[in-house]
Amino acid sequence: MSEMRITRASAGVFPVLATPFAPDGAPDHASLSRMVERFLAMGAHGFTILGVMGEADRMDGGEASAVAETVMAAVAGACPVIHGVSAPGLDVVRQRAEVAMAMGAAGVMLAPPRGLGPDERIVGWFDAVLAALGDIPVCYQDYPQITGAPISLAALQGLFARHANLVMLKHEASPGLGRISALNAMPEPPSILVGNNALFIPLELARGADGIMTGFPYPDVLVEVWRRHQAGDLDTAEDLYDAFLPLIRYETQPGLAMAGRKYVLHRRGFLADPALRGPAAALSDRDRQEIERLMARCEARAADLGVRVAT
Amino acid sequence: MSEMRITRASAGVFPVLATPFAPDGAPDHASLSRMVERFLAMGAHGFTILGVMGEADRMDGGEASAVAETVMAAVAGACPVIHGVSAPGLDVVRQRAEVAMAMGAAGVMLAPPRGLGPDERIVGWFDAVLAALGDIPVCYQDYPQITGAPISLAALQGLFARHANLVMLKHEASPGLGRISALNAMPEPPSILVGNNALFIPLELARGADGIMTGFPYPDVLVEVWRRHQAGDLDTAEDLYDAFLPLIRYETQPGLAMAGRKYVLHRRGFLADPALRGPAAALSDRDRQEIERLMARCEARAADLGVRVAT
Amino acid sequence: MSEMRITRASAGVFPVLATPFAPDGAPDHASLSRMVERFLAMGAHGFTILGVMGEADRMDGGEASAVAETVMAAVAGACPVIHGVSAPGLDVVRQRAEVAMAMGAAGVMLAPPRGLGPDERIVGWFDAVLAALGDIPVCYQDYPQITGAPISLAALQGLFARHANLVMLKHEASPGLGRISALNAMPEPPSILVGNNALFIPLELARGADGIMTGFPYPDVLVEVWRRHQAGDLDTAEDLYDAFLPLIRYETQPGLAMAGRKYVLHRRGFLADPALRGPAAALSDRDRQEIERLMARCEARAADLGVRVAT
Amino acid sequence: MSEMRITRASAGVFPVLATPFAPDGAPDHASLSRMVERFLAMGAHGFTILGVMGEADRMDGGEASAVAETVMAAVAGACPVIHGVSAPGLDVVRQRAEVAMAMGAAGVMLAPPRGLGPDERIVGWFDAVLAALGDIPVCYQDYPQITGAPISLAALQGLFARHANLVMLKHEASPGLGRISALNAMPEPPSILVGNNALFIPLELARGADGIMTGFPYPDVLVEVWRRHQAGDLDTAEDLYDAFLPLIRYETQPGLAMAGRKYVLHRRGFLADPALRGPAAALSDRDRQEIERLMARCEARAADLGVRVAT
Repeated sequence: MSEMRITRASAGVFPVLATPFAPDGAPDHASLSRMVERFLAMGAHGFTILGVMGEADRMDGGEASAVAETVMAAVAGACPVIHGVSAPGLDVVRQRAEVAMAMGAAGVMLAPPRGLGPDERIVGWFDAVLAALGDIPVCYQDYPQITGAPISLAALQGLFARHANLVMLKHEASPGLGRISALNAMPEPPSILVGNNALFIPLELARGADGIMTGFPYPDVLVEVWRRHQAGDLDTAEDLYDAFLPLIRYETQPGLAMAGRKYVLHRRGFLADPALRGPAAALSDRDRQEIERLMARCEARAADLGVRVAT
Repeated sequence: MSEMRITRASAGVFPVLATPFAPDGAPDHASLSRMVERFLAMGAHGFTILGVMGEADRMDGGEASAVAETVMAAVAGACPVIHGVSAPGLDVVRQRAEVAMAMGAAGVMLAPPRGLGPDERIVGWFDAVLAALGDIPVCYQDYPQITGAPISLAALQGLFARHANLVMLKHEASPGLGRISALNAMPEPPSILVGNNALFIPLELARGADGIMTGFPYPDVLVEVWRRHQAGDLDTAEDLYDAFLPLIRYETQPGLAMAGRKYVLHRRGFLADPALRGPAAALSDRDRQEIERLMARCEARAADLGVRVAT
Repeated sequence: MSEMRITRASAGVFPVLATPFAPDGAPDHASLSRMVERFLAMGAHGFTILGVMGEADRMDGGEASAVAETVMAAVAGACPVIHGVSAPGLDVVRQRAEVAMAMGAAGVMLAPPRGLGPDERIVGWFDAVLAALGDIPVCYQDYPQITGAPISLAALQGLFARHANLVMLKHEASPGLGRISALNAMPEPPSILVGNNALFIPLELARGADGIMTGFPYPDVLVEVWRRHQAGDLDTAEDLYDAFLPLIRYETQPGLAMAGRKYVLHRRGFLADPALRGPAAALSDRDRQEIERLMARCEARAADLGVRVAT
Repeated sequence: MSEMRITRASAGVFPVLATPFAPDGAPDHASLSRMVERFLAMGAHGFTILGVMGEADRMDGGEASAVAETVMAAVAGACPVIHGVSAPGLDVVRQRAEVAMAMGAAGVMLAPPRGLGPDERIVGWFDAVLAALGDIPVCYQDYPQITGAPISLAALQGLFARHANLVMLKHEASPGLGRISALNAMPEPPSILVGNNALFIPLELARGADGIMTGFPYPDVLVEVWRRHQAGDLDTAEDLYDAFLPLIRYETQPGLAMAGRKYVLHRRGFLADPALRGPAAALSDRDRQEIERLMARCEARAADLGVRVAT
């Protein structure tokens, strides 16, 4: 097994990558490469691709593979890359996972199928799929607000106890702080990276989360927050995080989050164009003004704290 | 435009095809061809493929294309074939629709993305997609119990009034009988084919539905019900339908419906094997006994009514 | 403890009572008394009141108490009466349960609060409430399709194993046949009465269900089905059931079920008026014609089987 | 009509009141009176009672009336009080509304029944109920994330255009900023008070919202934010709001929000005890430490901005 595979010891900031599109809808590989390189330079510890943030369900199979190839090439082995492979059926999951690993992925991310429940059916689904994936490292994406497939803490702990290849949790359940404490108390706790729109990061790190996996378009800020936290500077970590909370909060709007994030990525120079694949909610002029005002306010507050973000 | 395209005048029984799999999970094209030929011989007026019943979301793109090719070859122009192309994004829908039409499809079927709402967002989504599909004929799948995307009657009528290429409704909303009456009162009503697990067919036909689109594994019975209804024999049509209602009812069990239907298709000799792609609820021995008992009881009652089904 | 309390040995047909209203919306106690008496004469083994079917959430506290008093007086100790007491909070549940028991109820019925999940939260809720209810016998209403609170089989078995006062399950989960088999295999299985719109009764009885708890407006038919089943005449029990399946199926329409049932109760002479408390979906003339036609067809088929229903 | 009734011109900060309970579960009327008096002294422009935040569904009818009486007495005509009266049926809504108005309420608040949809059914429900309520002023609570009953903007505008007694919107839909802009562009726009866990207040006020209706336990801060906004000091209003955003964010955790808010109210001296009616998620020691730390951090930041909150 390569050293680059994700393990229960994985930690740090794993940006979830957006897929850049040109105004005509074609994937913009130049922007994608540049964004990866800049995020690496900002200190990203890994990447996650082909999730919701990457509009994976709005690309065909060939486009998704091309996106993955561009990312793998730009990363060039510098850090682990996790590929989203969620699908309702085992065959498709396995095929996607094998393709991902053959391309050099560090592991795959998997959410339960929509609406699956109760516990026994989610557990049955994962038991079957994890067994079929053999030694491919898996990250369980627990986002019941979106999937409608809530799993109990005990059942989740059981999955981590039974399956050595289930190594990581993308923690997005809410309320969820108590869950982090409980999972960390396991004999061999999983790596816990937090998502859920970045809304609880300092609290989650304080509870023992190992890192951050989200599409918030300031990975530089997240890296600095994480570093300060690692260094034991909990208060200054939270001060910096709080400076950006108004923008983080803005991105919790269902249906507008993606458009907002891509607009910020565009304004920060990472994407040539903020286009989404449609049909999608378009930002109004007023929305864009609000975002720019929030960016300016958050960046100014960070500057007051001595942190200057690239523009 | 070919005569084979679906239009607002389309009518009859359109079986939704299951995808046969071998015990090792490989698509079983021989069973698929044979099933299509036998359903044609039974009087099917069209087919629908690559929907939920076809486990489309459990096949990769290449497998789905191969399944479509087998069906198109077996049909050989004898009747229209509708391809499911549902996806959240316009680009994937358009690409799938263009591939389908190039293969000889008569039209495409499209459900709104999961959880989309309220009305204005569903309407916006379809306005954009229908405009992009140009003259490709589209069937709107209205199944809010599954999609979580209910559309009001007025908004649905608006879509049919504005878009000439929206020609058909797969009607699965419940309660829905009043909807059929209202849609049929439009100046240019759509073709209405009913699904919803086949649970209301005689009532729906009496309200003016034009046909039936469902995976119930006795298309021969559905054809005879439809023919009797067309001939004005409403009572005998309903008598025959009622004979099979106990089995139809059995197939409404969420999570077991697919397994039950494939088991019946297997017992009737259409499928070499009843396998589903996993992870899926498996039938217990007891479940199988129940299904066989229901088959025997329903077939015996049909025989009492002078209808003999192939076994 | 009175002999009239429900226990794990309770069995038979427990009609869920509708609340009759006059056209001006006032509860019609005369119809209610008469309906109870006639159902008793038909062989009902118990009653359930103040559930969804009784429009409990559309009456104020005083009206609900008056309805309960009328039912208790009409029953006059002839059979057990279960009172619905569902509420999100312990205090209200306990108060309602104590009032019900003081009025002579045989037990109370309780569903988990809407949307509660996953397992651990449902279990925690019931552990607290069941402990607080002391020796009051409780029926767990498991209807996840409506409550959005699915509980796993293992968790449900745990509740029945831990709480002696949890004696009955109103089984409405689907798919659910395997659940009945599993619960019946417990050392001290609960009494299992089946609901879920009466859609699977013969299969559920064959799996070991002890009785029927539903608002289907032909309790006379349900009693005869149950008796035949008890006598070992599974086929004739199912024949009679199947004769009414077209009407049972009609009543599965969400939003129309209550109106349809009350219309049948009115046509059969149990209710002076079919009025519901509004705002409610009104039956159209066409709907009423459909129901009358289905009643005539079902009753005629029953007559062919030698069963004559009161009209 | 009294001058105290809510109208389309109503504006300001309307705290949604928690119901204080003693450790033994009894309503604590002394704390309730004191809290109302202190909130009035802080500048509250109105109150809302008997909503989710008031645990209305965990009190019986007598307790709820007693709570309302205490609030009305403590307010003593100083400002309008809105009573929550949501129920699925017209009769209960009307009875509650009449009782509320007889007690001196300024209007009533009403959400659509759970899961109601699509548009046409929500509109039908409100058309019937609003007609029955005559001249009682009504606030529409639009919180589809909780009710599962999303209404389209056009349908909502139609209700406000048709019903003179529908005067106010409690705006909680997300995304919702565009909705505020559109509703404000109506010829006679409703009063728009924003809720949704207080998460977007400065943006919503900038879009034209007239006030704030939420249970955030610092109404003093909300009043100051609203005043600054009214005075045109948008930036300083937002600075103060942002100082408390970390705590506001904490209270978005489903299932923990109520417990967290009551704990803050207790720590601030408004409630003698933070008890909730059970079964409810209890705060852990760790949770309480987090809340206290957030309170201290937010209050310190406010102090840096020259705003001192009572402790």
